[in-house]
Amino acid sequence: MSIKIKLAEKAKDVEKALNDYLVIREPKKLYEAMAHIPLAGGKRLRPVMAQLTCEMVGGESKKAIPFAASLEVIHNFTLVHDDVMDDDDLRHGVAACHTVFGLPTAILAGDSLFAYAFEMIAESNVDDKIKSELVRHTAYTVRRIAEGQQMDINFEEEETVDPELYLEMIRLKTSILFGSAAYGGALIGGKGIEEANELRQMAIWVGLGFQIWDDYLDATATAEVLGKPSGSDIRQGKRTLLVIEALDRTNNKERKELINILDDTNNTDNDVKRAVEIMSNCGALENCREQALEYLNGAKKTIEKYPENGARELLEELLEYMVTRGH
Amino acid sequence: MSIKIKLAEKAKDVEKALNDYLVIREPKKLYEAMAHIPLAGGKRLRPVMAQLTCEMVGGESKKAIPFAASLEVIHNFTLVHDDVMDDDDLRHGVAACHTVFGLPTAILAGDSLFAYAFEMIAESNVDDKIKSELVRHTAYTVRRIAEGQQMDINFEEEETVDPELYLEMIRLKTSILFGSAAYGGALIGGKGIEEANELRQMAIWVGLGFQIWDDYLDATATAEVLGKPSGSDIRQGKRTLLVIEALDRTNNKERKELINILDDTNNTDNDVKRAVEIMSNCGALENCREQALEYLNGAKKTIEKYPENGARELLEELLEYMVTRGH
Repeated sequence: MSIKIKLAEKAKDVEKALNDYLVIREPKKLYEAMAHIPLAGGKRLRPVMAQLTCEMVGGESKKAIPFAASLEVIHNFTLVHDDVMDDDDLRHGVAACHTVFGLPTAILAGDSLFAYAFEMIAESNVDDKIKSELVRHTAYTVRRIAEGQQMDINFEEEETVDPELYLEMIRLKTSILFGSAAYGGALIGGKGIEEANELRQMAIWVGLGFQIWDDYLDATATAEVLGKPSGSDIRQGKRTLLVIEALDRTNNKERKELINILDDTNNTDNDVKRAVEIMSNCGALENCREQALEYLNGAKKTIEKYPENGARELLEELLEYMVTRGH
Repeated sequence: MSIKIKLAEKAKDVEKALNDYLVIREPKKLYEAMAHIPLAGGKRLRPVMAQLTCEMVGGESKKAIPFAASLEVIHNFTLVHDDVMDDDDLRHGVAACHTVFGLPTAILAGDSLFAYAFEMIAESNVDDKIKSELVRHTAYTVRRIAEGQQMDINFEEEETVDPELYLEMIRLKTSILFGSAAYGGALIGGKGIEEANELRQMAIWVGLGFQIWDDYLDATATAEVLGKPSGSDIRQGKRTLLVIEALDRTNNKERKELINILDDTNNTDNDVKRAVEIMSNCGALENCREQALEYLNGAKKTIEKYPENGARELLEELLEYMVTRGH
């Protein structure tokens, strides 16, 4: 069975929980806006991470379902608000929430999804002491994600960005929610704070690897593998970690050339090739790949401490999939 | 001592908690945006309601401080997002968050305040079982507040609004957070769900009375009492419950006249007087006053069931202040 099918199988209970919560009620426009993005699909990687961590440490993954679903809801709330902030019309090929329902309702839908996430945690069948820690940790995580988004907004106004600061931004904006998945899964599975924190770090590494691999893949994989034109980050002029790294490593001439290609809105295939070449020549491309694989290895070492079981095996497959997919 | 001074005295601990949480850290722009509206002042009516209810039922109001502060933070998060949705530049005479920090940061600031509220509840020193219920109830309340705001948005597109639906909208948008204050205060004070719900209803009534009294006051009080020009709701063409009620009661000619005054952006003092006259002639003004006082009486009857103590006395003064201030 392919990993994608295994993940979809694993995500079924979360899918059900999401459908149960996100029913349409009055005022309909609000609830339709809330359901729009979360029910448009998705691999549910964060929930599956929570479930598998819970199972791997010896817990019952059923008990982790509401918490797991709450992370998906939080992920989606941040997507809805991010799209408003960035004025993006599309989200994975689907019309953004504010495109369909307007800005006020999109803001409200995000807020209400956020509220639902805490209702889900509060209504879950876990010990009250653990529940209270899940609430604290999840709220804290959302605040850190917002910090990451603010850093990203700040970077847009800057000429050059320090690669380390950029990495911290993607750690906050895209990785720590994976960390919360493993952290909560471990707590629900009966582990203490210390072990949960170690597993949180494992998932943060994977989240970072996942994001960095995304940059790498976009520059190197074929359109067939990507399901979209290769080099689309370059064509859109996105400042990914790969680009930040390349700008940090190149000399003035190649640096200027790269910036010109990134800032051009009408790139030819040859321009894209040239940009990849520059990023490869300066070592940024290889560095990007190595960094992703290093994160993956760190994560794998952590889970290898646990006795082999079906959940550990699938978790390992999930990590491999997240960081080496497409190659 | 005047009630205002007593309230300010009572709010001191909450003021301190707010200042402790809302310190400026990196990224500064985000944290400055978060602190901007909550630390610009306010009577802290919701926190005081939570503290006094807790004390009145025999609890220690110190234990209710983090929860009380969390309600103020939630109230402020909704203000920040509402101002974005309504594109209002001013909030109680202070520049709105998005006016100073821009739309993306204002959305993030609201989200982060929301997150902080749950961190405050989770970190408070109350029994975990109660904490869980506070989280569930507060999250649920935020979702209902969003429903109220959506109803308000929907109404703007409608020619006429049913007064009952309008009342439900203000119940959700402005009153149920007062309800949560009393509900949580009662639980922290050691009472069970049933009694907490009765006190919740008490505070919802007061919240409704507070809002309706606001409409009444704006039409009837002098500029001196209001601290702003009298009839400002009319001048702005606001559809308050008073206006909705008047539109429901008036015949075609006076109805049209009232609508014309409301829609006119350049009203003279005489226009405003005429609008008040129409609202008075049809009985809407008197009905508004009576409705507010009825809510106040219902609320007072509930708290009279409790043994007399300093907290009950001050709570009674608070209710009177909220519903009969300025007259």
